[in-house]
Amino acid sequence: MIGVFDSGYGGLTILKEILCELPRYDYLYLGDNARAPYGNRSKETVTAFAEQAMHFLFKKGAHLIIFACNVASAFALRALQEKYLRNPDSLYRGKKILGVIRPVAEDAIPKSKNGKIGVVGTRGTVNSGAFEHELHNLKKNVDVYSMACPLLVPFIEEAWHKKPEAIMILKKYLRPLKSAHIDTLILGCTHYPLMKTDFERVMGNRVAVLDSGKIVARSLKQYLARHPEIESRLLQKRTCTYHTTDDPGRFESFAHDFLGMKVGPVRKVIL
Amino acid sequence: MIGVFDSGYGGLTILKEILCELPRYDYLYLGDNARAPYGNRSKETVTAFAEQAMHFLFKKGAHLIIFACNVASAFALRALQEKYLRNPDSLYRGKKILGVIRPVAEDAIPKSKNGKIGVVGTRGTVNSGAFEHELHNLKKNVDVYSMACPLLVPFIEEAWHKKPEAIMILKKYLRPLKSAHIDTLILGCTHYPLMKTDFERVMGNRVAVLDSGKIVARSLKQYLARHPEIESRLLQKRTCTYHTTDDPGRFESFAHDFLGMKVGPVRKVIL
Repeated sequence: MIGVFDSGYGGLTILKEILCELPRYDYLYLGDNARAPYGNRSKETVTAFAEQAMHFLFKKGAHLIIFACNVASAFALRALQEKYLRNPDSLYRGKKILGVIRPVAEDAIPKSKNGKIGVVGTRGTVNSGAFEHELHNLKKNVDVYSMACPLLVPFIEEAWHKKPEAIMILKKYLRPLKSAHIDTLILGCTHYPLMKTDFERVMGNRVAVLDSGKIVARSLKQYLARHPEIESRLLQKRTCTYHTTDDPGRFESFAHDFLGMKVGPVRKVIL
Repeated sequence: MIGVFDSGYGGLTILKEILCELPRYDYLYLGDNARAPYGNRSKETVTAFAEQAMHFLFKKGAHLIIFACNVASAFALRALQEKYLRNPDSLYRGKKILGVIRPVAEDAIPKSKNGKIGVVGTRGTVNSGAFEHELHNLKKNVDVYSMACPLLVPFIEEAWHKKPEAIMILKKYLRPLKSAHIDTLILGCTHYPLMKTDFERVMGNRVAVLDSGKIVARSLKQYLARHPEIESRLLQKRTCTYHTTDDPGRFESFAHDFLGMKVGPVRKVIL
């Protein structure tokens, strides 16, 4: 099975694209809604929560986990890979965890013509410097301009993100990125695709706005083609089961109302 | 010792007033910042988190706990009192938990001349109906108008609550309460005192805006005067220790920057 983990609902925007690209496999989704959002929490706390999620998904039978959450990818991915997957004595030997930062950085580099790339995300993701790090690893002479947009997630979760106040705030957040003349903008938070057209409108025609759903889905497809030893261990019964740490009914209705996804049944779990 | 529990920083607005009114006692503050905010979580989740906080504070030596968090008071107080304090075999026999809903409702009733009282808070507090319940218990013929204001906490935590967007949103939230001609408004969330003057400006001169800090502090003083068997068990060394479930440094700087409180040292705990 393929596990998809997010702090809350946001990762459903990634799962949706993965299900579209790779519909044959079996999926387990876990949203840690009881402790969401992670965006303002410390590295230590995010890592502890992501570790619990990893144990849950591996124990439920996942062979491969996608950390759909940007801040979990930024803060916890390397530490958990090191602790559990590179260790030859580990319980989870041969299993994998993939994040969302690297594939999006790989997509952004060839897209940018002027070498000026913007990154927006929660405070944790931006402060971690994870996107800068990956982008500079791939190409030394790119300029990366980052901006934390911490109020967008609450607006989106309240379904107030199309109201004038949300757009005013978006414009304030994006002003420094416009002044920097970026030509590529990475949406480094799984909620932001719900405001993608607003990002595009504020940034203007010349800026390509990249959301991670399709990029991560394509990258996962390529990964499985390159790694038949993982691919062959994945079940292909086209099932998808959903787990949340808070109220399952609310999870179901959010997925339906915001993403037009019919999810269910949703199970409540305690991590 | 007196324990003060909140989902995050908000309860510091209550603690500040308690320390002012009753400075001689010893205090333990616990902010569950790793899982804040609680305002949108289910009753079951809030109760589970509050139960862990209660165990922590009683085990640390508290004899009396104040649930400074409105949603914890609304969802968890009665259930935990029933389960742990009314049970003669309980480990915690003789100890007490007090909430913030009842004292504020008691204060509001005589203040309202026209019997129309407004309540603002997070979605959890408003949906619980806890303020309506207490207000109607105290006086049958009052009309209670409630409004959930879920975006205010993120604005306050971002220190964006004095920006025009925050005031526009506040006006939208308060419009139905203005139309209902309330003369008393209860701020049912510990963050809202930081916007008290904005609430007053939007509601106008004829509306009394009640924040819970001073009311809860006075009510605690009266409670201790009525209950010498509890009061005599409290230490009086004028100490105050702070605990958070997330980053202690961030807790310290938030308390300093937002509330002008010098707190510390702050200890990190896992519930």
